[in-house]
Amino acid sequence: MKLYDFEMAPNPRRVRIFMAEKGIDCDRVQVDLRAREQLEDDYLKINPLGTVPCLELDDGTRLVESVAICRYLEETHPEPNLMGATPVEKAEIEAWQRHCEFNGFAPVGEAYRNSQPFFDGHALAGTFGQFERIPELVERCQARVAFFFDRLDERLGETGYVAGDRFTIADITAACALDFAMATKVYAEGSADLANLNRWHGAVSARPSFRANPVKPRD
Amino acid sequence: MKLYDFEMAPNPRRVRIFMAEKGIDCDRVQVDLRAREQLEDDYLKINPLGTVPCLELDDGTRLVESVAICRYLEETHPEPNLMGATPVEKAEIEAWQRHCEFNGFAPVGEAYRNSQPFFDGHALAGTFGQFERIPELVERCQARVAFFFDRLDERLGETGYVAGDRFTIADITAACALDFAMATKVYAEGSADLANLNRWHGAVSARPSFRANPVKPRD
Repeated sequence: MKLYDFEMAPNPRRVRIFMAEKGIDCDRVQVDLRAREQLEDDYLKINPLGTVPCLELDDGTRLVESVAICRYLEETHPEPNLMGATPVEKAEIEAWQRHCEFNGFAPVGEAYRNSQPFFDGHALAGTFGQFERIPELVERCQARVAFFFDRLDERLGETGYVAGDRFTIADITAACALDFAMATKVYAEGSADLANLNRWHGAVSARPSFRANPVKPRD
Repeated sequence: MKLYDFEMAPNPRRVRIFMAEKGIDCDRVQVDLRAREQLEDDYLKINPLGTVPCLELDDGTRLVESVAICRYLEETHPEPNLMGATPVEKAEIEAWQRHCEFNGFAPVGEAYRNSQPFFDGHALAGTFGQFERIPELVERCQARVAFFFDRLDERLGETGYVAGDRFTIADITAACALDFAMATKVYAEGSADLANLNRWHGAVSARPSFRANPVKPRD
């Protein structure tokens, strides 16, 4: 297997952490998003969406979309289970994963991309994202992110992990969202008083999978 | 089982069509989004996210998030398969479903909600969506929707269905996005020249599952 990756980007980081939890290793190819290599012809032949990550299997099949790639890895490497064992648990973990993705991870990215002139004409990721930035979005996204982490702190006062009493893909999404938010200063302050969030974030960040895949500092 | 539903809303419609494809019937409770019943205490006790659909199982377990509900139904009612049979097929269908959701379904809703004064203070759905509208978003979303359907038309010139040669959850997401876009006039014109899209849309709309769950006209 070969992972098309970019170490500074949050989506490939989710997949690398997921793989590390399962003890899966594979070759990695860096696609430099700072140079927009993901939109060059060579890479578009690999993934026409112009996004990373992309997982290439040994038979040449290419899988895209972070959570879909995780689904493949969960099916082929079931242990440790990260996406649910029973029908109800699968649905509950998927619901939490989606909640963290739509209400946490996505608005962090939206605030960041719509605030940075680098993303002029590339307000969203990939070939489907070549639209102008809307700076008015930034403040709303920052408020959404703060609201999300406030509510997540309450949740983590009741449960050890995002989706319940054990570590799952929902924790990967939520922790990568928090790390990304802090690295981009979308959520520079505000978490200090959130004791449950901080306790959880410390525990998750200490896992070997996170320590092996740290947030890369931005230039 | 009991489905908390609203017939005019596109997300519950996705789940109702998915259930109809599998021959699953259940009680349905209408939550009137026009009256904001989803944000009243009675419903927030059922689903604190303040969104529909929500599926209540016979033991009282409540599942939220449309695609997570579909995952539960797929696991408990495997036939006909709508989310993939092998690890690769599961990943490919999930990737197409996500692509249609993020680049098609979501911007339709975003254009609609940010254009209508009814959504003042409710620019996104549910308890996590109580933020002001940004009318500047509407035009960008309309352009994203048009681009999405142009590219989907190309795809459907190569394959019979969105994710390949058979009907899957990705077709439900894409067709519900198209119906929603036309009903809200986010995409009032433009599809007439898209022969592949129209052929596919006609075939999908003729399925008993879609005919039993039509788009409800807006007031």
